[in-house]
Amino acid sequence: MIDQHTICAISTAPGSGAIAVVRLSGNEAIAITDKIFYSIKQGKKLSDQKANTIHFGTIRDGETIIDEVVIALFKAPHSFTGEDIVEISCHGSVYIQQTILQLLLQNGARMAQPGEFTRRAFLNGKMDLSQAEAVADVISASSEAAHHVAINQMRGGISSEIKNLRNQLLHFTSLIELELDFSEEDVEFANREHLLHLTLEIDKLIEKLAGSFRYGNAIKNGIPVAIAGDANVGKSTLLNALLNDERAIVSEIAGTTRDVIEDVVIIDGIQFRFIDTAGIRTTTDQIETMGIERTYKKIEQAEIVLTIIDATMPFNDIIMFLTRMSEKLHTKKSALVINKIDKADKATIEELTQMGEAMEFPVIPISALKKHHIETLTDFLTQSVQSNGYNESDVVITNLRHYESLTHAGEAIKRVIEGLYAEISGDFLSQDIRECLHYLGEITGEISTDEVLGNIFKNFCIGK
Amino acid sequence: MIDQHTICAISTAPGSGAIAVVRLSGNEAIAITDKIFYSIKQGKKLSDQKANTIHFGTIRDGETIIDEVVIALFKAPHSFTGEDIVEISCHGSVYIQQTILQLLLQNGARMAQPGEFTRRAFLNGKMDLSQAEAVADVISASSEAAHHVAINQMRGGISSEIKNLRNQLLHFTSLIELELDFSEEDVEFANREHLLHLTLEIDKLIEKLAGSFRYGNAIKNGIPVAIAGDANVGKSTLLNALLNDERAIVSEIAGTTRDVIEDVVIIDGIQFRFIDTAGIRTTTDQIETMGIERTYKKIEQAEIVLTIIDATMPFNDIIMFLTRMSEKLHTKKSALVINKIDKADKATIEELTQMGEAMEFPVIPISALKKHHIETLTDFLTQSVQSNGYNESDVVITNLRHYESLTHAGEAIKRVIEGLYAEISGDFLSQDIRECLHYLGEITGEISTDEVLGNIFKNFCIGK
Repeated sequence: MIDQHTICAISTAPGSGAIAVVRLSGNEAIAITDKIFYSIKQGKKLSDQKANTIHFGTIRDGETIIDEVVIALFKAPHSFTGEDIVEISCHGSVYIQQTILQLLLQNGARMAQPGEFTRRAFLNGKMDLSQAEAVADVISASSEAAHHVAINQMRGGISSEIKNLRNQLLHFTSLIELELDFSEEDVEFANREHLLHLTLEIDKLIEKLAGSFRYGNAIKNGIPVAIAGDANVGKSTLLNALLNDERAIVSEIAGTTRDVIEDVVIIDGIQFRFIDTAGIRTTTDQIETMGIERTYKKIEQAEIVLTIIDATMPFNDIIMFLTRMSEKLHTKKSALVINKIDKADKATIEELTQMGEAMEFPVIPISALKKHHIETLTDFLTQSVQSNGYNESDVVITNLRHYESLTHAGEAIKRVIEGLYAEISGDFLSQDIRECLHYLGEITGEISTDEVLGNIFKNFCIGK
Repeated sequence: MIDQHTICAISTAPGSGAIAVVRLSGNEAIAITDKIFYSIKQGKKLSDQKANTIHFGTIRDGETIIDEVVIALFKAPHSFTGEDIVEISCHGSVYIQQTILQLLLQNGARMAQPGEFTRRAFLNGKMDLSQAEAVADVISASSEAAHHVAINQMRGGISSEIKNLRNQLLHFTSLIELELDFSEEDVEFANREHLLHLTLEIDKLIEKLAGSFRYGNAIKNGIPVAIAGDANVGKSTLLNALLNDERAIVSEIAGTTRDVIEDVVIIDGIQFRFIDTAGIRTTTDQIETMGIERTYKKIEQAEIVLTIIDATMPFNDIIMFLTRMSEKLHTKKSALVINKIDKADKATIEELTQMGEAMEFPVIPISALKKHHIETLTDFLTQSVQSNGYNESDVVITNLRHYESLTHAGEAIKRVIEGLYAEISGDFLSQDIRECLHYLGEITGEISTDEVLGNIFKNFCIGK
């Protein structure tokens, strides 16, 4: 149920800026603002004004003028939350923001909880649950690609796919349930062949959506790239070269140990998380073997692996290293990066290139130190992502909750298919179809509980 | 001259929030936005819409939807800058903010310089210079009192006082200059007695305004409070007690040495800067004498001095200390704080109190450790500020530039007064009156140069 209380919060970024926006939503939003707002046109009341209009005046605490503000009025149902909304644009000092908020609280509003504006938008039917979830993703997206999938989801990309599946299933399930009412007459309203065709179609769609999660999640959280190579081949120099690339923006994910600190680089709008694996040495030493085990694990977590070799190293060492790695590497998008080409002679580079190509790796000769051919490397990275089989217009799952619901829905629809082949009775079919419908409904929020909503919105920021 | 280019900037606080506002100002503001904005009502153009209205739609980069936004339209001259203004409220991710800004730049806007919106408001006559300067003060004010003087100034408090002075002077100077045209006829259009009366009045007002600077500056930047006392009397415990007080908000001004680190505490809306003086010991040691010199200097910079004595110390030491300090202390708002009353007997406390009162100090017995009577101390502090002779409605100068102009204007008006007593001729009087008018005009910006404006607005934030 929707809490009828009028809520308020500061909606702009924390701290001081030129302007800040304090937002109210609820039945009393306009009346509460009227208590502290004085229009420059004396006697003018906000409650008498039309929707989607702007008003100048002052916010006052009794006689004391707190600030000169601009008020924007939105009226139910044509607003973000579907309720009356007032947005107060004030000067952006923390003192003013806090004082205006305090005045609103004193006059009957209550502080909004995290994500409560968006939660109300969902509860009032302004958006479905997957769209509401996307609002948080849109705000936190830091790369073009992550932004793109979030905006698609917010604008209903996933919703329409899911709704389409649900509507077709609902049609069939009502036919089957009609059969049950006439069960003694042994009629078949729902054509079993049509149903089989449909369920196979739906199964394929669910598989496709669920399958996009790995890619979608990588886009949202960054594509994991493992850098494998001996400790002295120049991994950190390469990382620095990538970070200094004009097109790259850098940040760092803090971890508890150096081992999990990852360098994040945005290249051409795609975020990459570089996982520095421990150096692999071509040795039989026990500890080093453990190091290799660890490296293997990290390679498994990665989407892309860059194997770096040092062109100045003895040829035999390089071959031993590559032989050892090659099996693992061929399961991933993988490139062989020949580093330090500024220090090696042409013949050696040529020889290494031929060897790499013989092993069916794309070969990228670079000098990390001199920043030669770094662009070839970044092109390889971005193309590896773009060749993932997904287009800009494809609907991609980025949310673990959606993935889990899709997996459950997929299991249910597979049981329906099996049941159809086994020619089981309509009531069993109906049960599995209902289960599939239930899980699909969870994604868009047709099926939701307070607990689910609580979990979703608690991670939102206050003011959204 | 006003640059005709349309400017744009992010106006909300930096970083990501629920929403952010990108602002444009200039002749082309609406046309530029129209190039990237698509209304939910197909074909609707912003340029056909009325002022003070709100519009929903999307910002697009070609075919790609960047965000769903709300546009607020303001039209010249009824806007903050006096020009057409468009405010784009978007989702508050840094990516979206930057992308929208980029699109606006690509479509013909240019990046606003710091304070350029406010500068245009001044140049377009929407506010005078002292009001424009106050906009920055309003945004940076962190205490109620500082906010109050800034808002007063922004709403024209100083402007109206100055304009009033100028208008009266202008009237007289025109009469005197009329006399010069008829100089051969030896007429006196400007009644000298009236002029003397007026200039004395103006001199008094200028003195009063200039005199308020010390108070205004303290309100704006924090009231300097020196804490004097032996190193062991519990100065830092007292500071902690003040900082832990419910009504106090704390921050720290970073300095290069411990010596200049000040503790900032906001008590009842007034900001206090606590200057910890070096400990004074009752000794004849050369170095300690230097310490006392330093303490004296800090006491001179302070508005209020809290002298702290330790009730458990030998009585003679306390007397020696107070005797040494007393001359300095009586030039300031000063209280004698008797600390550690939880460890001293009643008779000693009584004796110390009587001694303090005999020296005509307000005496405040406290226990900083047990937090006894801290409120009596904070009341003393706030009342010391409030008893400064200034009311909430008084116009107070907080800006060094205004203070300097007022000082020059005061010198000029004093020369006019001397001239009137000496019965000098009208052309000499006129020259000094013109000079006074010039300096008063500097404050409100009737007289201003590009250099002065540049200096004022360079310290603004971008987006204001």
